[in-house]
Amino acid sequence: MTTPEPSASASAADKPTPRKDPWELPDVSGLTVGVLGGTGDQGRGLAYRLARAGQAVIIGSRAAERAQQAADEIGNGVQGAENAECARRADVVIVAVPWEGHAKTVESLREELRGKLVVDCVNPLGFDKKGAYALKPAEGSAAEQAAALLPDSRVTAAFHHLSAVLLSDPEVEEIETDVMVLGEVRADCEIVQALAGRIPGMRGVFAGRLRNAHQVESLVANLISVNRRYKAHAGVRLTDI
Amino acid sequence: MTTPEPSASASAADKPTPRKDPWELPDVSGLTVGVLGGTGDQGRGLAYRLARAGQAVIIGSRAAERAQQAADEIGNGVQGAENAECARRADVVIVAVPWEGHAKTVESLREELRGKLVVDCVNPLGFDKKGAYALKPAEGSAAEQAAALLPDSRVTAAFHHLSAVLLSDPEVEEIETDVMVLGEVRADCEIVQALAGRIPGMRGVFAGRLRNAHQVESLVANLISVNRRYKAHAGVRLTDI
Repeated sequence: MTTPEPSASASAADKPTPRKDPWELPDVSGLTVGVLGGTGDQGRGLAYRLARAGQAVIIGSRAAERAQQAADEIGNGVQGAENAECARRADVVIVAVPWEGHAKTVESLREELRGKLVVDCVNPLGFDKKGAYALKPAEGSAAEQAAALLPDSRVTAAFHHLSAVLLSDPEVEEIETDVMVLGEVRADCEIVQALAGRIPGMRGVFAGRLRNAHQVESLVANLISVNRRYKAHAGVRLTDI
Repeated sequence: MTTPEPSASASAADKPTPRKDPWELPDVSGLTVGVLGGTGDQGRGLAYRLARAGQAVIIGSRAAERAQQAADEIGNGVQGAENAECARRADVVIVAVPWEGHAKTVESLREELRGKLVVDCVNPLGFDKKGAYALKPAEGSAAEQAAALLPDSRVTAAFHHLSAVLLSDPEVEEIETDVMVLGEVRADCEIVQALAGRIPGMRGVFAGRLRNAHQVESLVANLISVNRRYKAHAGVRLTDI
């Protein structure tokens, strides 16, 4: 009900060293980003936006030819590869596969993803005649499922609320939205925040630990309702930050 | 993962009658709003903002004297009453009690709330040394719990993401945030949306059915993380609408 506010005792004045600026993020321009499920709408749109912003991007698919074909269509220097090779060659690996194939795909790449920064952007949703609704994975969320299946990877969650239509439309210059980034390790989250920030209009905002990923993933069900009612491609912007 | 967009077949061009403007909302200026739990931070802040916007407001508490005292402190014509009387006299009743007392309070007012428009704004959260986390009520969400306990009321959910600090600060003129409103009946949601819209800076946005309330309620756990990291009073704004 009430949002607790930062306590006065945590103010900078009480600390011997100055507090780190949360907007000071690392330079990620040299990192190669892999997108598993890069031939789907969301993966394709993300690959396009990141490549257009100057990032090296490899999209992965189960079949190398399909990945290559999608990469050629996206252009902007995007490469295509079979999922395992995509995972091996990338520094940061975005998981953008359908929820139905999530566990199987992630588990099959455990070796290739060892030590890698993994960004899960999967929204487990069900659909019926009343619209979309949240599915609750046994692990708590898609991101926590990935973390459980990839004990040697650095799993984060982000990029849940983006409209594939806006991402893929070359005439859209800026995508006005914040990207909520969740994870356990600050340095990992900051890399993902910085990646999001490379796309014009987006900010990467730290939004908690993985145990709070479920509501971020399933908020997409609400955005679908918003889109239907307002004929929009709704995004989420956090205010006062 | 992907946010489905409105299908082309649902466009206005296909329909014989023009589609209703989703921003066209009813005049709610004559309604009396009750706030159960109106002596807590969130209820008090909401009561203040609504009264300041010209709404007739009664805050409820278990003890009439406490309600009266809080009402006097808030000013702006706010009245105080014991919860049952507050519910009886109000047209719209906001439930802003702590999650721990939610079921008991709601159930005890079943008669008084019969036929009334109920707005649940309770966020079921747990706290430990790692911060806040979502609690999952057996009914799915606090709002669905209220709906189950109040079969003869019109239950909606809204006002989850507001900073009590900003609400209560008289120097804050506008609160820049959207209020996600959930419910089963469009006319009921529109009344709540209109109420939210009376507070400067706020928009009331329809955001789905009650079965999708859990993620909206528990997103507060993420906003708490945002507030800590950025030293802010974060709110949520939906873009492209």
